[in-house]
Amino acid sequence: MHDLTRQLQVKNDSKIVLLVADGLGGLPQEPGGKTELETANTPHLDALAREGVCGGSIPVKPGISPGSGPGHLGLFGYDPLEYLIGRGALEATGIGFKLEEGDVAIRCNFCTLDSDGNITDRRAGRIPTEESAPLAIKLREVSIPGVQVFVEPVKEHRFVVVFRGEGLGGNVADTDPQATGVPPLDPIATAEDSHKTVEIAKEFIKQARELLADQPKANCCTLRGVSPKPNPPSYEDVYGLRAAAIAVYPMYKGLAQLVGMDVIGQAQTLEEQMTVLEENWDKYDFFFIHFKYTDSTGEDGNFDAKVKKTAEVDTCVPRIMALKPDVFICTGDHSTPAMLASHSWHPVPTLLWAKHCRTDPCQNFGEAECLKGGLGQFEAKYLMPLALANAGRLGKFGA
Amino acid sequence: MHDLTRQLQVKNDSKIVLLVADGLGGLPQEPGGKTELETANTPHLDALAREGVCGGSIPVKPGISPGSGPGHLGLFGYDPLEYLIGRGALEATGIGFKLEEGDVAIRCNFCTLDSDGNITDRRAGRIPTEESAPLAIKLREVSIPGVQVFVEPVKEHRFVVVFRGEGLGGNVADTDPQATGVPPLDPIATAEDSHKTVEIAKEFIKQARELLADQPKANCCTLRGVSPKPNPPSYEDVYGLRAAAIAVYPMYKGLAQLVGMDVIGQAQTLEEQMTVLEENWDKYDFFFIHFKYTDSTGEDGNFDAKVKKTAEVDTCVPRIMALKPDVFICTGDHSTPAMLASHSWHPVPTLLWAKHCRTDPCQNFGEAECLKGGLGQFEAKYLMPLALANAGRLGKFGA
Repeated sequence: MHDLTRQLQVKNDSKIVLLVADGLGGLPQEPGGKTELETANTPHLDALAREGVCGGSIPVKPGISPGSGPGHLGLFGYDPLEYLIGRGALEATGIGFKLEEGDVAIRCNFCTLDSDGNITDRRAGRIPTEESAPLAIKLREVSIPGVQVFVEPVKEHRFVVVFRGEGLGGNVADTDPQATGVPPLDPIATAEDSHKTVEIAKEFIKQARELLADQPKANCCTLRGVSPKPNPPSYEDVYGLRAAAIAVYPMYKGLAQLVGMDVIGQAQTLEEQMTVLEENWDKYDFFFIHFKYTDSTGEDGNFDAKVKKTAEVDTCVPRIMALKPDVFICTGDHSTPAMLASHSWHPVPTLLWAKHCRTDPCQNFGEAECLKGGLGQFEAKYLMPLALANAGRLGKFGA
Repeated sequence: MHDLTRQLQVKNDSKIVLLVADGLGGLPQEPGGKTELETANTPHLDALAREGVCGGSIPVKPGISPGSGPGHLGLFGYDPLEYLIGRGALEATGIGFKLEEGDVAIRCNFCTLDSDGNITDRRAGRIPTEESAPLAIKLREVSIPGVQVFVEPVKEHRFVVVFRGEGLGGNVADTDPQATGVPPLDPIATAEDSHKTVEIAKEFIKQARELLADQPKANCCTLRGVSPKPNPPSYEDVYGLRAAAIAVYPMYKGLAQLVGMDVIGQAQTLEEQMTVLEENWDKYDFFFIHFKYTDSTGEDGNFDAKVKKTAEVDTCVPRIMALKPDVFICTGDHSTPAMLASHSWHPVPTLLWAKHCRTDPCQNFGEAECLKGGLGQFEAKYLMPLALANAGRLGKFGA
């Protein structure tokens, strides 16, 4: 598709807004009941559903529940099965660490070893962040010739390590044995390009054990999701769009940066995000606005809280529409039904509003109505081509 | 898919009719209004929609507006992203020039050069056809050893050149600099296989300038869309069908010939096309009938004229159905909403009628009803396998 959008892209003055309510799709609390979105008071989205075209977005493929990485890559128009983001790279992205070309990122866990070197606790007793963060910072004392080592605390037993240097492959197996009573596994290369990474990882673990030797809980660490910087082409390249991201959480800022969006503003609330949007309206062609709390309340299994947060999303719509975007889209990166308290595979209600979108019979924005929608059920990766077409930004394919 | 249809094809006496109303899909003139097809009086298609199964055909991929070439290849069951038709080959096809294996076709524009050899007009003052056609014919005097050169007038400043010979590649960059005040670009090979083509193109331009030297407007030409004959497998090969095309315009005859259809009759009207169909009913398994005017009225932005032409399509349906086809399909190669006055990306209303098609709730043939249709939204390239299946022409896949 990107070969096509590269070839067909047309520049004009149109504006596209992609409002992502994370984990938007849901499930009713009982058969025949209403979902979170259907329960929520969303008069503005309902009005746009009547004028626009709706459908169900399949984040990856039917039946596949995505994480935030593939969920957003899909919405951004990148095939999430082609552009893989390793766990280490996602964790680094999620804390705002700016990966450079050639970096290898690793998600690490503090763990507890006994005097025989066997793991007694794979998460170091779920050590609290206030104890683990200083230990992660202490690990910055690790020094390995020929390579820069970055260590960043994350939360509880988790931290991130990034190796920066020449010739580092990202094909190294996890060292967590997924069991106690045994020692951590040695790092092993799973491809020829990663022998150097393995040597550096071994040296890192050796020095870390020395630095942590006197710790009662976190006296060692395991390495997981060793991964290179993902390298998707940019929005400017594949769509010809100057794109901006207005997000509160580092993860979504990081994902947007990966595809070349500018992260703008310092907003902490949806209201503040709207102000950032208004202030930057003239500077960009495309705006990605991320709202986290529809997902986090769903993850908490709190139906009522998710309903409330969904209604909050609706309140920002008038400020967006007052700017007169040419294309407005509201969707989620996946469903997070409170009934499941987790990400799910269900298609995500999606609304596209534009002048020539060819409207459909949908009378409000919700899962059941979206089944009648003119977008049908489609893979998320096609949403961007549809947005571009509706913005008049794609020329004709072939004569 | 063609590996499958080749392997599973079954011969029988069934007949399939594919009626293509070019640019069939549309848009309402105002939100909530009816499209051209929904406005048109189409009692016969409506009746078949009640008995048949409907849906929305996506010509290429969501958001992509195709030209006639990819639009028809998709309907013929050829992935339009796999089988590309270069501009030169399409132009040659469009004027009825029968390309042979190994030919290289070029779309050329007459242009005007000043005494310094710089372009003053890229289209030779939009020279009228009655002046340009004799000049194109004069260029048949070009003689290049080892290669046959064909020159065919098209319209106004456009003509087609075909080189026929051994070892000619189609990878040559356009020579139109897309600007005035500069000379035409030299032909340059963009792949190793095309150096010979470049030499011949240079010689052609040299001789053409000599032949046109005394012309006030059209004293030179530029070369665009250099392309080899596209080579899709034939209908006989991939579907086991003896296929015929009944079209008025050379472009659609040419596209049908590319996939091995016989072009039959000399019909100039839809009524005459029906007569050709009746006269040849026993000789073929598959009939492609092309109606142009739903597209041309859409391109003109004339909603009412498109409504009228759509109703005209309906009038031919009784004569088709009187022949008792096993499968009847009515669709378009793309949408051409009068509101856009251009080809668009919107799914194309599609109706398939057959004995065992599993009907759906659609009560008439139109964009909104098709959203309820049993075919759902599908890529155009799957229409032919559906036609074959409904004709009993596809065996079981696997044991």
